[in-house]
Amino acid sequence: MIQPSKIKTREPRITLVGAGPGDPELITMKGANALKDADVVLYDALVNEKVLEYASPESIKVFVGKRSGAHSSTQEEINKLMVDYALHYGHVVRLKGGDPFVFGRGYEELNFAASYSIPAQVIPGLSSSISVPGLQQIPVTHRGLSESFWVVTGTTTSGAISNDLYEAVRTKATVVVLMGLGKLKEIVKLYQTEHKNNLPVAVIQSGSTDHEQLAIGIVDTIVEVVEEKKITAPAVLVFGEVVSLHPQFQPIRDFFAAIKEEL
Amino acid sequence: MIQPSKIKTREPRITLVGAGPGDPELITMKGANALKDADVVLYDALVNEKVLEYASPESIKVFVGKRSGAHSSTQEEINKLMVDYALHYGHVVRLKGGDPFVFGRGYEELNFAASYSIPAQVIPGLSSSISVPGLQQIPVTHRGLSESFWVVTGTTTSGAISNDLYEAVRTKATVVVLMGLGKLKEIVKLYQTEHKNNLPVAVIQSGSTDHEQLAIGIVDTIVEVVEEKKITAPAVLVFGEVVSLHPQFQPIRDFFAAIKEEL
Ligand SMILES: C[S@@+](CC[C@H](N)C(=O)[O-])C[C@H]1O[C@@H](n2cnc3c(N)ncnc32)[C@H](O)[C@@H]1O
Ligand SMILES: C[S@@+](CC[C@H](N)C(=O)[O-])C[C@H]1O[C@@H](n2cnc3c(N)ncnc32)[C@H](O)[C@@H]1O
Repeated sequence: MIQPSKIKTREPRITLVGAGPGDPELITMKGANALKDADVVLYDALVNEKVLEYASPESIKVFVGKRSGAHSSTQEEINKLMVDYALHYGHVVRLKGGDPFVFGRGYEELNFAASYSIPAQVIPGLSSSISVPGLQQIPVTHRGLSESFWVVTGTTTSGAISNDLYEAVRTKATVVVLMGLGKLKEIVKLYQTEHKNNLPVAVIQSGSTDHEQLAIGIVDTIVEVVEEKKITAPAVLVFGEVVSLHPQFQPIRDFFAAIKEEL
Repeated sequence: MIQPSKIKTREPRITLVGAGPGDPELITMKGANALKDADVVLYDALVNEKVLEYASPESIKVFVGKRSGAHSSTQEEINKLMVDYALHYGHVVRLKGGDPFVFGRGYEELNFAASYSIPAQVIPGLSSSISVPGLQQIPVTHRGLSESFWVVTGTTTSGAISNDLYEAVRTKATVVVLMGLGKLKEIVKLYQTEHKNNLPVAVIQSGSTDHEQLAIGIVDTIVEVVEEKKITAPAVLVFGEVVSLHPQFQPIRDFFAAIKEEL
């Protein structure tokens, strides 16, 4: 039942909430509380629908993500929907996978809200870039192995890999690539050009969900391992010595040590 | 009162939990639930003590961080305490500021637990590297401005800035420096050597807490602004065009535009 009094008294406002990598328990308390208070929730494809259970049953839930076959809203449409719902219903929570500001177009939505003078707030979420490796107990930094990590997109607006990746492969940073699974071969070639054929690599699919899968190898083998395991998107690619800390890497290391001895 | 039956029945286990940047609501639901279940909580200086309120009142809470004047535990002592408490009391939550794997020495603790065959789990937290800029509505990535972000430590084991910073200043990545406030002048010089004198910079102190403070400027002015505002650690440094999206940057931009016109 619509409660007109409620609708009229609530001021329009927008909260961008990061839902984290998938596991509904990996949202922040603050994010869950915002959902509880929401009149409308606009959510992406990468958001686990179980996260919506934090929202009130009366709230309106609108899917605005891309899914094969189904209609996917453009960013412009999402912006307009968001403002429209805020003006008509009050508090809109814009729920996004991971963190809203990591390849999430969060700022574009904030900016659009501001152009309508609708107050907007941001509640960060666990970005898959750090948390998905972390849940596999692969640290993005580790004393003696890595003093930094560099998070890069595998797919820019033009569809090409980011120019930043050409530089990243040359450095000692742990390199984390989002939206990069389809570009894995291309990225591997960049590392091979740098003669980093033995650099440890992990590819993690659907971190923190029931569909989680891990492929571990080195630059020269990772494409094969990923194909064998039939890894699909969404996936995070991690290039760096820190990957060697994963227990599954030990046999790979032993194998190479054995080969070396034979030579 | 000690309940010997309880102590005996609980198997030793360790959970590394990321507490997030400070605001107790910015811990994950899963992190708060682990705290609820903990028999012992070992926590760092960067952890807001209000986060401890999620833990049961009967749990043992041990401060192991560095604070001026007070005794600070070494990493070895922390490792030993952690295992000792797990063996004697059961579930130990090791609560760390931000995310356990971002300059958090989380892996060292996992490894130590493993050497005692104590099962250990990791619950990621919001790293200050993404969330502290994000709460100021500064996105680490933004279409047209930045296709990547590079998180680097300002202070390595040797006390020097990381070598990775020498490379980072040359790239187009958004560069986020942790533990870098004391090295701000040195880092600014690196940018000046690259002739990036006008690159926007933000320094954010104690993000998400009552002591939050923001300094915004460009490479050539940021040291002065930070001194004026008496910014202290902990602080995150953000170098990159994305900083120009902050409302406080507009007057700086206007100022430079006016100067340009006069010339
Ligand atoms: C458009 S980006 C958004 C990233 C998101 N804002 C974040 O901070 O995680 C989508 C990409 O994030 C990564 N991703 C998000 N969730 C993931 C998960 N649970 N497991 C693996 N990769 C994930 C994948 O690389 C995917 O292609
Ligand atoms: C030892 S590192 C640990 C980082 C932590 N694991 C994380 O992911 O945020 C400590 C540094 O984190 C940064 N930091 C942590 N919390 C912060 C906050 N609330 N505001 C600003 N900087 C913070 C500062 O640069 C500080 O020197």
